[in-house]
Amino acid sequence: MYFKTVDTAVIDAESMPWMPFVPYTNDVLLKLLKVDPIRGEWITLLKAPAGLQLPKHHHSGTVHVYTVSGRWRYLEHDWVAGPGSFVFETAGTQHTPVGVGDDEIITLNIVQGDWDLIGPEGQVLAIENWKSMMQRYLAFCETQGIQAQDVSSFSV
Amino acid sequence: MYFKTVDTAVIDAESMPWMPFVPYTNDVLLKLLKVDPIRGEWITLLKAPAGLQLPKHHHSGTVHVYTVSGRWRYLEHDWVAGPGSFVFETAGTQHTPVGVGDDEIITLNIVQGDWDLIGPEGQVLAIENWKSMMQRYLAFCETQGIQAQDVSSFSV
Amino acid sequence: MYFKTVDTAVIDAESMPWMPFVPYTNDVLLKLLKVDPIRGEWITLLKAPAGLQLPKHHHSGTVHVYTVSGRWRYLEHDWVAGPGSFVFETAGTQHTPVGVGDDEIITLNIVQGDWDLIGPEGQVLAIENWKSMMQRYLAFCETQGIQAQDVSSFSV
Amino acid sequence: MYFKTVDTAVIDAESMPWMPFVPYTNDVLLKLLKVDPIRGEWITLLKAPAGLQLPKHHHSGTVHVYTVSGRWRYLEHDWVAGPGSFVFETAGTQHTPVGVGDDEIITLNIVQGDWDLIGPEGQVLAIENWKSMMQRYLAFCETQGIQAQDVSSFSV
Repeated sequence: MYFKTVDTAVIDAESMPWMPFVPYTNDVLLKLLKVDPIRGEWITLLKAPAGLQLPKHHHSGTVHVYTVSGRWRYLEHDWVAGPGSFVFETAGTQHTPVGVGDDEIITLNIVQGDWDLIGPEGQVLAIENWKSMMQRYLAFCETQGIQAQDVSSFSV
Repeated sequence: MYFKTVDTAVIDAESMPWMPFVPYTNDVLLKLLKVDPIRGEWITLLKAPAGLQLPKHHHSGTVHVYTVSGRWRYLEHDWVAGPGSFVFETAGTQHTPVGVGDDEIITLNIVQGDWDLIGPEGQVLAIENWKSMMQRYLAFCETQGIQAQDVSSFSV
Repeated sequence: MYFKTVDTAVIDAESMPWMPFVPYTNDVLLKLLKVDPIRGEWITLLKAPAGLQLPKHHHSGTVHVYTVSGRWRYLEHDWVAGPGSFVFETAGTQHTPVGVGDDEIITLNIVQGDWDLIGPEGQVLAIENWKSMMQRYLAFCETQGIQAQDVSSFSV
Repeated sequence: MYFKTVDTAVIDAESMPWMPFVPYTNDVLLKLLKVDPIRGEWITLLKAPAGLQLPKHHHSGTVHVYTVSGRWRYLEHDWVAGPGSFVFETAGTQHTPVGVGDDEIITLNIVQGDWDLIGPEGQVLAIENWKSMMQRYLAFCETQGIQAQDVSSFSV
């Protein structure tokens, strides 16, 4: 039975590739660490140059962001997130990330559900979620000739 | 501090009104029981005539559906959900609900995150979530002259 | 890969057996509908005589209780949960269930994490969770000569 | 209404104190970043000397561990978690953490539900959860003359 295969495991971030966050930008890189295809959670590392700009987006669920290095903010908020800070994003919020200062930005992002790209009139232009991230990862591995790991599996 | 106010509580479904699921249909009624504005969970009862038809939609997270009465199915699946059955919808799935048989349909729905109305070319036409459901409830109470309850609160 | 096997499915409650909630009581019956071995969620129907008494217990996470029939309360709270009501139990709470009135009690219970049996001095006497419920179900099927279903699986 | 107060916010880890993980050890320090009193999530940074030893414990739900520095393992597993690695602990697992190598260990820990201290015969000796962590933090602030922050609140 399925439950007998499930166990705690480590994901070696060194073994996972940085992928450009296309088609939105080539400057922001993502490293996919894990997806939960039952619950819709997806966990990534993000690396961006100091001048990070990402489009406005909407979140269906919570996001937990731990900043490893660099500083960034949302245009919609006054605070700045620096190294070692923790951001708790509540469900159903929208915001526009921008870099602050001169250091490369690296964040750990634990996302529940959908990340919707929002157009100028509030419309949804694209949905990113566990499925699109898994597909982006598999496509990237194929074009690079990398053996893909099954980051959707909890079986050991 | 906030945590000192939080406790387990009952929601008396009798005290909550049935609201039409406008602008999509006047035939399907919803009763909002609870929303969690941190996590994006929203809990409703749904009542629909035997000939239920709802548009195709996408879910960002899980949905738990307990069928109190009536029978229904998704056009995309072979199974039929009858009284007392439990449906576990995994994150990132899309489907189109239709009624089966002659009995009124009543379901309990525990939804995590967004319910996206999907157009004929796969585009997102509207987002329903804890916020839109709360707003629909408050607007309905206002037009009916009902005193709204704060179903977003966990403080007792 | 694992994610390709995952999909929405119905659980036919009719096909699942009622099991006594031993070793605590023979009068309270449980029907296991689903467990999530990743997240620790377990979903059951509970059936108890009008004079329901269950020991004091502690919950690590949330519990969602929908009452199908009958009336019950917690010794620690003033409210009574009747048919059609919804109880939202917040994480880290303790309470002692008792029946109210003359009707058989049936509830749907969606539990996150552990249910700890609490002794008279506050000590933990036993842990019930997705694992113990799965083991109780498998053991019951074996003694009854029933073919067990893999309620831990989300693969179709 | 409650939902109107809720919004995304940053937690400045610099402003939070390191507290000893008493009564278990004085060598392991915890920094409480956030608790969710509805869902039972608690988020901490942990700092331990290279020779980290923590007692065997049980988790009711998932744990997400991001290792900022140092190396550690569980006696029950073969893998070692190093800097930048991500550990996904599934619900209902038990393990015994020990340090590996010569570097100070710092981890980010996102815990759902209870952490139970397990005795030599498998009994539960103590429960740590959002409540005990909040109480430890408030008690530490009081003894140190620090103004406590309400890390249980999502209102801005």
